[in-house]
Amino acid sequence: MIDSLVEKIKKTGAPIVVGLDPMLKYVPEHLKKKAFSEYGETLKGAAEAVWLFNKEIIDNICDLIPAVKPQIAMYEQFGIEGLIVFKRTVDYCKEKGLVVIGDIKRGDIGSTSEAYAIGHLGKVQVGSKRYSGFDEDFVTVNPYLGSDGVAPFIKVCKEENKGIFVLVKTSNPSSGEFQDRLIDGRPLYELVGEKVAQWGEECMGTSYSNVGAVVGATYPEQGKILRKLMPKAFILVPGYGAQGGKGADLVHFFNEDGLGAIVNSSRGIIAAYQQEQYAKFGAENFAQASREAVLAMKEDIAGALGR
Amino acid sequence: MIDSLVEKIKKTGAPIVVGLDPMLKYVPEHLKKKAFSEYGETLKGAAEAVWLFNKEIIDNICDLIPAVKPQIAMYEQFGIEGLIVFKRTVDYCKEKGLVVIGDIKRGDIGSTSEAYAIGHLGKVQVGSKRYSGFDEDFVTVNPYLGSDGVAPFIKVCKEENKGIFVLVKTSNPSSGEFQDRLIDGRPLYELVGEKVAQWGEECMGTSYSNVGAVVGATYPEQGKILRKLMPKAFILVPGYGAQGGKGADLVHFFNEDGLGAIVNSSRGIIAAYQQEQYAKFGAENFAQASREAVLAMKEDIAGALGR
Repeated sequence: MIDSLVEKIKKTGAPIVVGLDPMLKYVPEHLKKKAFSEYGETLKGAAEAVWLFNKEIIDNICDLIPAVKPQIAMYEQFGIEGLIVFKRTVDYCKEKGLVVIGDIKRGDIGSTSEAYAIGHLGKVQVGSKRYSGFDEDFVTVNPYLGSDGVAPFIKVCKEENKGIFVLVKTSNPSSGEFQDRLIDGRPLYELVGEKVAQWGEECMGTSYSNVGAVVGATYPEQGKILRKLMPKAFILVPGYGAQGGKGADLVHFFNEDGLGAIVNSSRGIIAAYQQEQYAKFGAENFAQASREAVLAMKEDIAGALGR
Repeated sequence: MIDSLVEKIKKTGAPIVVGLDPMLKYVPEHLKKKAFSEYGETLKGAAEAVWLFNKEIIDNICDLIPAVKPQIAMYEQFGIEGLIVFKRTVDYCKEKGLVVIGDIKRGDIGSTSEAYAIGHLGKVQVGSKRYSGFDEDFVTVNPYLGSDGVAPFIKVCKEENKGIFVLVKTSNPSSGEFQDRLIDGRPLYELVGEKVAQWGEECMGTSYSNVGAVVGATYPEQGKILRKLMPKAFILVPGYGAQGGKGADLVHFFNEDGLGAIVNSSRGIIAAYQQEQYAKFGAENFAQASREAVLAMKEDIAGALGR
């Protein structure tokens, strides 16, 4: 799956993933009105509003980017109805030729991680048949439980040609509370990074591994060190844009081949029309505003990488 | 919510939580046959089999125990249909007067953790209405992202009188890979334990906090230290039974008031009929085997605690 991602990044010239993290406050009034008039102010109505919002954005940006990253929490908050729209979004993005990174941050003891891996990347056995539950291409994984919590994901990645991104150094302000603590003189995130490199060896694509890492754009110095520590790991970089990461911060996350990282922006793209810079589009044309924001992000990153 | 859990533990005399972690291989053939004959060998058929299994177990043990802990991964593996049965299980257990601990191990950056907290413990705003997505009483939370990833859960706990259990030292074999690493001479799990104690101060019940901790029965020595480090935190103790933890290992997880811990068993209870010890019940009477296994566990723990 990493080969497929690399190929799409080369084709689009955009090492960019758009985070489909819809909150109702991002959804324009006319879409909410439409959804609520059909289903009422219900969980189903909210989910429908999210779906209408996602679909129009996907339709307007899918030719520009290699991948999307739906954040499952934003759907899970609406219960079953929200998760139905998560699944519909995953399926629709795949139909449109996009690589789908499910931002699920799951991780548990072995037998439980296996169930998550099967549900999101693999197929579950039901009698004589096998079914996909959610069927993303990649998912994000939390490493706190150690190797036996990650191994079942890697097993399924091998079987199904899928991939994972393991949380190494997250983009949030308090990520350092545990991740930066020194162990034998080195921060915890470096030990996790070393494990990612090791886990990745058994699950290689052509140039990069199907086991990647999450490292926040908000921590470029750490990104520089981790880039060297995990030379074959693709780095998923959240925190660009709304969280404060800038194009110039990103250069260290990439390898000399110009690959090795994919930068996420969520709010900055999907709620672009709410920013002053794109206000001219108006709420009716929110998806064109998203398209403009993708083009601007592409230029910002290309500039930073000296292309 | 912790007061409610304590009250139910006192009433039943059983500091026990039964893990509702159904795998199809635990479900007796006659239930699978019934579910598949109605819905085919489909995800819906599998979910129905799980539901029939859960319901009969719950009906047979609900008077003996204070709480259940459905592991959401085991439902999520069946996609939407599985999650519908997760929700049905949560609702049914609450109807039966059980405290429900959703074993979801979520955790993300602030705004995303907020969505998980709302979806599982709180209510989401849809226009002028508010709805519960899953509505468990407690959930488990992964601390890898630090305070700002946990804070939104605590906020919702305060608003809704709910609770959380934060992963401190997990029961799996490789939990030590990161959790045991020494930081200033002390293992990471102790630092996390200290944070749990600190987070819990702002969310107290009468004697215990609504912010508890997960510490595996498989690590009794660590449990002893953590018990002292987090005197007001209830400890959710997985790893008893099938994972190898014994009654005698559990004594250190409790306080002198005989409270402060709740011990989980999953397979050991729900798949009891598959063990030699309970084989006499047969697959038809699987739920009576579960009842016997609960009674035996209760006795084992009472014996260990010298009651």
